Amino acid sequence: MPVDVAAWAEQIRSGDIRAVSRAITAVEAHDPHSEELLRTLFPDTGRAFVLGITGAPGTGKSTLVDRLAANYRKAGHQVGIIAVDPTSPYTGGAILGDRIRMQGHAGDAGIFIRSMATRGFLGGLARATGEVALVLDAAGKEFILVETVGVGQDEVDIVRLADCTLVLLVPGLGDDVQNMKAGLMEIADIFVLNKSEREGADRMEAELEAMLHLAPERAGWKPRIIRTVATENKGIGELAAAVEQYREQSRNDAAQRAKRLEHWKRRLLALAEEQFLRRIISGETGESLLDALAGEVAARKKDPYAAARELLTHAEKSWERK
Amino acid sequence: MPVDVAAWAEQIRSGDIRAVSRAITAVEAHDPHSEELLRTLFPDTGRAFVLGITGAPGTGKSTLVDRLAANYRKAGHQVGIIAVDPTSPYTGGAILGDRIRMQGHAGDAGIFIRSMATRGFLGGLARATGEVALVLDAAGKEFILVETVGVGQDEVDIVRLADCTLVLLVPGLGDDVQNMKAGLMEIADIFVLNKSEREGADRMEAELEAMLHLAPERAGWKPRIIRTVATENKGIGELAAAVEQYREQSRNDAAQRAKRLEHWKRRLLALAEEQFLRRIISGETGESLLDALAGEVAARKKDPYAAARELLTHAEKSWERK
Repeated sequence: MPVDVAAWAEQIRSGDIRAVSRAITAVEAHDPHSEELLRTLFPDTGRAFVLGITGAPGTGKSTLVDRLAANYRKAGHQVGIIAVDPTSPYTGGAILGDRIRMQGHAGDAGIFIRSMATRGFLGGLARATGEVALVLDAAGKEFILVETVGVGQDEVDIVRLADCTLVLLVPGLGDDVQNMKAGLMEIADIFVLNKSEREGADRMEAELEAMLHLAPERAGWKPRIIRTVATENKGIGELAAAVEQYREQSRNDAAQRAKRLEHWKRRLLALAEEQFLRRIISGETGESLLDALAGEVAARKKDPYAAARELLTHAEKSWERK
Repeated sequence: MPVDVAAWAEQIRSGDIRAVSRAITAVEAHDPHSEELLRTLFPDTGRAFVLGITGAPGTGKSTLVDRLAANYRKAGHQVGIIAVDPTSPYTGGAILGDRIRMQGHAGDAGIFIRSMATRGFLGGLARATGEVALVLDAAGKEFILVETVGVGQDEVDIVRLADCTLVLLVPGLGDDVQNMKAGLMEIADIFVLNKSEREGADRMEAELEAMLHLAPERAGWKPRIIRTVATENKGIGELAAAVEQYREQSRNDAAQRAKRLEHWKRRLLALAEEQFLRRIISGETGESLLDALAGEVAARKKDPYAAARELLTHAEKSWERK
């Protein structure tokens, strides 16, 4: 069946939920039409504000995201949620909870929730997440909340997509501020001290403050600390206000522009890389060449650098044939 | 100063610690000589047995690795340890503990310990880890223990380097077997129930057994469960025996051969990808082209797919010039 990409894009722009769902499925599956669709939609993107929300397991990310989304909905905004679990490379088991939780918003057309975990041989989760965000952006979602588990490089790559990054902490979870992953400290625009009714919240806030004081000066925005109890909806308004303040302040600052440029540099490299890899392993020759070379290297008959160069030469030839 | 790679390789083969250290530093820094060195050493590799050790923070990985290494040393084997922290993409803060711990083996020339955390724009931690393992292999280390935090895709990629993978669990750490990351379950060859003097160890072992029973049948080796108390050196001998048993049984089996082939396919693709990326951003034109394209995309003047294609065309041209 021929796909009318222009009509599909138009449905997405009008916010048609089924068209949006279908687009996300196409993006995830690397459907041949997804690129054309994304290219068509691209000029309509760039209006949404993307929030990255990360934190260790048990910090209450899902609940916080739910409450923040509800807050934006109440203010009349369209919201998209992307729940990403980079720790589930093989199966989607760990995000079952997210799927269940989504049912709480069932029937509200102003909120769209999607959870992602799969990751193929080609292309990463960060790419797919970024493309899903583009679809939601084109569909008129004004706030896109990207939620991910706060560990590892994948998560850092995913959070880099965001305009503003929230890092969740919980008093007494064993991860005191000193042990916090350096990567997370550096990407946080706002620290959310969730479950802040718990013992140790004051001490944790003091430690965070001290650490922020010691951290190298950042141009423009100074990271803030907001206390919340997401399960009781406490502090959510303050958090939304802090996000708004960040947005206002960073709208025109050089640091934010540099961040966006860096963001697109990474994404372009990743896209080029992916197109390149697809060329290498495309067709029978590519796949069987890779198999043969891997066998020779495993048997120490060829070194891996020479083998990699043969793969490059193969890609080059497939270019010349075009 | 001209570098005599052949002499350097010879020093490494003879186990010279300073030459090995220098090689690892060169590999990590992507020093121009590192590739030639690795190519020279490659035929001397493939003899070491690589053990991947992973588990959530707090499972006692470092202690277990220390004790297992001591066990191998006592049996007269040369040992290399690579401690990788993929959650520290920016600074090496989190692995300071590892660096301190290494001093316990100071003075033993039969053990070499290196900790890694940095990850550059080009190439990943998995590549660097694999290359460091090659250096240690060529230097005559018979067992190479690669220790990494058990979360995220990076860690799975790193553990994939190993011939045999140990996954550490601890009773009552909040991560019961049901919640265990699917990815980790599937890569484990041996489950190590560490801190097994704790309450809940029996229940956890029973749960693991049940889960292994439900898991899809694996050809050849059936994953085993070994109980240890690493801090008291308990169960370490049993663990080493299980590893040996795995090694014997899998030496000629088809599953292990397929695993090695898959391993090299991934590594070759990653190497080709890296060489390709280096071509894209090499020289002034590449870097400034990337900057310009990212700027146009951020301003929505060009879509990312068209921009990525321009990058590919640039790489293609840089090929033709060769």
